[in-house]
Amino acid sequence: MPNMPTPKFDDRPAFPRGFRCTSTNCGLKPDAKDLALFVSENEAAAAAVFTLNHFPGAPVILGRETIRGGRLRAIVANSKCSNVATGERGIENARRMAAAAAKEIGSTADRVLVSSTGVIGVQLAIEKIEQGITGLASRLQADPMVGAEGIMTTDTHPKALSARVGGATITWVAKGSGMIEPNMATMLAYIFTDAEFDAPALDWMLRQAVHVSFNMLSVDTDTSTSDTCAILANGLAGRVDENEFLRVLIAGCLRMTEMLARDGEGAKHLLRTTVRGAANDDDARRVAKSLVNSPLIKTMVHGADPNVGRLLMAVGKAFEADVRPGSTDAWINGHAVVKGGERLDFDEAAVRAALTTEVVDLDVALGAGNASATAYGCDLTAGYIEENAAYYSS
Amino acid sequence: MPNMPTPKFDDRPAFPRGFRCTSTNCGLKPDAKDLALFVSENEAAAAAVFTLNHFPGAPVILGRETIRGGRLRAIVANSKCSNVATGERGIENARRMAAAAAKEIGSTADRVLVSSTGVIGVQLAIEKIEQGITGLASRLQADPMVGAEGIMTTDTHPKALSARVGGATITWVAKGSGMIEPNMATMLAYIFTDAEFDAPALDWMLRQAVHVSFNMLSVDTDTSTSDTCAILANGLAGRVDENEFLRVLIAGCLRMTEMLARDGEGAKHLLRTTVRGAANDDDARRVAKSLVNSPLIKTMVHGADPNVGRLLMAVGKAFEADVRPGSTDAWINGHAVVKGGERLDFDEAAVRAALTTEVVDLDVALGAGNASATAYGCDLTAGYIEENAAYYSS
Repeated sequence: MPNMPTPKFDDRPAFPRGFRCTSTNCGLKPDAKDLALFVSENEAAAAAVFTLNHFPGAPVILGRETIRGGRLRAIVANSKCSNVATGERGIENARRMAAAAAKEIGSTADRVLVSSTGVIGVQLAIEKIEQGITGLASRLQADPMVGAEGIMTTDTHPKALSARVGGATITWVAKGSGMIEPNMATMLAYIFTDAEFDAPALDWMLRQAVHVSFNMLSVDTDTSTSDTCAILANGLAGRVDENEFLRVLIAGCLRMTEMLARDGEGAKHLLRTTVRGAANDDDARRVAKSLVNSPLIKTMVHGADPNVGRLLMAVGKAFEADVRPGSTDAWINGHAVVKGGERLDFDEAAVRAALTTEVVDLDVALGAGNASATAYGCDLTAGYIEENAAYYSS
Repeated sequence: MPNMPTPKFDDRPAFPRGFRCTSTNCGLKPDAKDLALFVSENEAAAAAVFTLNHFPGAPVILGRETIRGGRLRAIVANSKCSNVATGERGIENARRMAAAAAKEIGSTADRVLVSSTGVIGVQLAIEKIEQGITGLASRLQADPMVGAEGIMTTDTHPKALSARVGGATITWVAKGSGMIEPNMATMLAYIFTDAEFDAPALDWMLRQAVHVSFNMLSVDTDTSTSDTCAILANGLAGRVDENEFLRVLIAGCLRMTEMLARDGEGAKHLLRTTVRGAANDDDARRVAKSLVNSPLIKTMVHGADPNVGRLLMAVGKAFEADVRPGSTDAWINGHAVVKGGERLDFDEAAVRAALTTEVVDLDVALGAGNASATAYGCDLTAGYIEENAAYYSS
């Protein structure tokens, strides 16, 4: 996986054939966009994965039902209110939102995936959303960034990507900045393609890609109640090679994962932690996550200090993993700092300087096997505290 | 457990009969105390638990060997350097430290428990420590706070407690402020008593007490490589009732746990998260830890915002636990905020005011069984970031 050639991502992301989107302010936020609609001109094969949180939002509960059909015409999403912990009325409001979007584009509610993101425990202002949806079909246009703008919460910029595979295009649109340690997908990530695949194939490929990308992302260890990652394939470009498609799908999910991590609340650095030589895949993922989630690692990256002790501590607290101190080596941005579990006598000034780069790579070799994994996160800064201590839930 | 009468803790902690201590600066730190010695005038029965981190420090490796004997005369501890990731030379230095203390008090090295706390990956300046130990026996005195001063790192104050049980005394001395989610004990906690128990009885009682106290403490989810909790019983007060002793032992460990949590790096609040109605003990502990460790809960406590969404999110991300949204209730400092998984219409101003108190209690009832657990932590503030981003490892 790490040695795959990186596909070329377009400087200005574009949609595959047959997909368009729009976004608007429907009054949930004072001024900013709070409603987005993504539409395929024909029915697309579709798959999706959702949060494992025990308190899934109403849109996730409804989405699990909708995705069983394996076909989607549209995704409608609002920001500001997540429609979570809202009981039966919340489910009813999510259904009304799907129905309104279906009516607007001439489809049925079971072909519309609904997402809501924002504050938890507040009922959706469904009338505002229904009014906001009216007329959106006439404003659909070709720039995926416009849709990305409609689903932002604490994100500092909208996030979209596209790449070509054979004669087809894949486009990713996502949001997410805090409450991010997805366990199925990141908060909201939508993938559109005009390649032709059936729903089971899409589902299998999506799970492969999410496993190594969004599920290895953590901004703050907090797993949202709204995480949703969906893929829509409308087939307008016909068949493409499945291996090649999967390769580009994974590469784009990884790139979007890095974009989300880099825009983590308060983040100044993208942090990548790679574990090699693990006894198995689970161990590699556990140790990589232990590193990327450690507050002392995250503040060390923020402070640009090559603190070998914190690095070993964070590897060593992955209790369930097969960790052998005597065979553990480690590198900070390519500089060897640990050999056989002991601190090397390295050039501290050089490593400190290396740590000031925007992307920080921590690499650990466990010497216990052949499995590897990379986790994606960011540094922990006063900006995260300020943003979340000042956040008022009502 | 929660309904036990609280024993009376002395305003000024005192030692049990036969225990004394001292501390000094031996040159590891510029001026502050960095070396402490705790001595029993006779050989005490002893038990200890240590970190589960895969990279235990040399003192922990040696301590596991020493404690097998079940007898201790002394504990010698230094701060500033933890003697972790220091290989064979580190073990040899830990042995030299035990031997020096044994010689000073007229004992043998296998009756001295060694602890080191501070930076990881640096060899111990053993000559300074050996010189510092010389003459300490003549300076032993009766105030446990003096010993507590010698083991402080980022603690803002020394920590000691004592309480009476029957004709005996129990005294706790501890340190710990960051890199705290012990998985056997907190960084360093020593318990002294003149009650008479054999080592197996002490070991059993210590594990009972640690299970509900230090092992439910988390400042920052980071498990130190040096965690050690030891108990010494020199028997000078004779036998006391075991149930009564265990009750007071647990109460003191809980109180010390709260003192450590309250002094967490940058902390402004003590955070207690209590889970009732869990299907089993593991579930109760998991959900309580999920709450106490969530950065979004910790910043919510810092910001005094009654964010019900974060509360449900943190309960719901305990994936392995039996969580039933429809039967989940929650309280913030006694105010009901969630009923049956849905946000109640509560008096926000009142709850916000309640959150400004120094101790914040979050209570969750799962409605799945009869098990309960409480976890102990603190809020997450810019002070934690400043302290740890500015910390230089060398």
